[in-house]
Amino acid sequence: MNSIFKRRSIRKYEEKSVENEKIHLLLKAAMSAPTARNQREWEFVVVTDPEILRELSQASPYAKPTAAAPLAIVPLANTERMNGTAYLEQDLGAAVENILIEAEELGLGAVWMGIMPREERMARVSEMLKLPEHVVPFAIVAVGYPAEVREAGERYEEERVHYNGY
Amino acid sequence: MNSIFKRRSIRKYEEKSVENEKIHLLLKAAMSAPTARNQREWEFVVVTDPEILRELSQASPYAKPTAAAPLAIVPLANTERMNGTAYLEQDLGAAVENILIEAEELGLGAVWMGIMPREERMARVSEMLKLPEHVVPFAIVAVGYPAEVREAGERYEEERVHYNGY
Repeated sequence: MNSIFKRRSIRKYEEKSVENEKIHLLLKAAMSAPTARNQREWEFVVVTDPEILRELSQASPYAKPTAAAPLAIVPLANTERMNGTAYLEQDLGAAVENILIEAEELGLGAVWMGIMPREERMARVSEMLKLPEHVVPFAIVAVGYPAEVREAGERYEEERVHYNGY
Repeated sequence: MNSIFKRRSIRKYEEKSVENEKIHLLLKAAMSAPTARNQREWEFVVVTDPEILRELSQASPYAKPTAAAPLAIVPLANTERMNGTAYLEQDLGAAVENILIEAEELGLGAVWMGIMPREERMARVSEMLKLPEHVVPFAIVAVGYPAEVREAGERYEEERVHYNGY
């Protein structure tokens, strides 16, 4: 699982679209993450339309990389599929991590940009993507072939680890 | 990234301890997940003491597999490392997903058991592991060599995918 360790946030992309087979694998990876009570509440908007990508780049102060990306995946939670939303963010966080690792695995680069729980950002994305009220946007994941090289340094920190108690 | 697709929740384990090198890789995987603003707020308690494993198995109605596991990892968030906790659960969810995938990669099995945001469960785990007040428990991840075989079925659902809008 080298890709777990090699993954970095990639914000600059080549002008090359992402193949449909790769988009399929990114979504399949997301849907392979566990969800509490196996509720599988996620849905996804796949955005490749340059105009909508530009709009999405205005959804938050950190969403700029979306403007020049060939692809964004917007994970959503369908609250009607859920019996309580206590684990929504954990579930979706795990799904997004799978997208990021699978992107690395496929030679792509990606960056996770937070939308939930910021209400203003959520309202903007909901409007841009015409989401019904029971479907809430979680994040924006911009994806493309990397146009920057970033090395992953050592991330293990022994002082963060405790044994059999704090 | 076959491990993303092959991973299943494993709740039964062989009576065999998990090697220290593998524990190190599980923690390194967790620490390789991104965090909002790169706050890296996580810490981890590694539990191998059978008595504490048994105690942890009482932390929630779903924590039973911990009792017979050779290892549990309890991810924590150190709130003093954070400038606001808005993204805490997303960050930790991504870290846990990396533990689960890396476990699969190493021939181990694991299951993610929710603790946060259930206050009663959090209080129990905090007491069991003697956590200071600014450090909060997120989940329990039981890990071991699998004593059950579970095949991952097809998880891709095309009806969950929307294109350029909902």
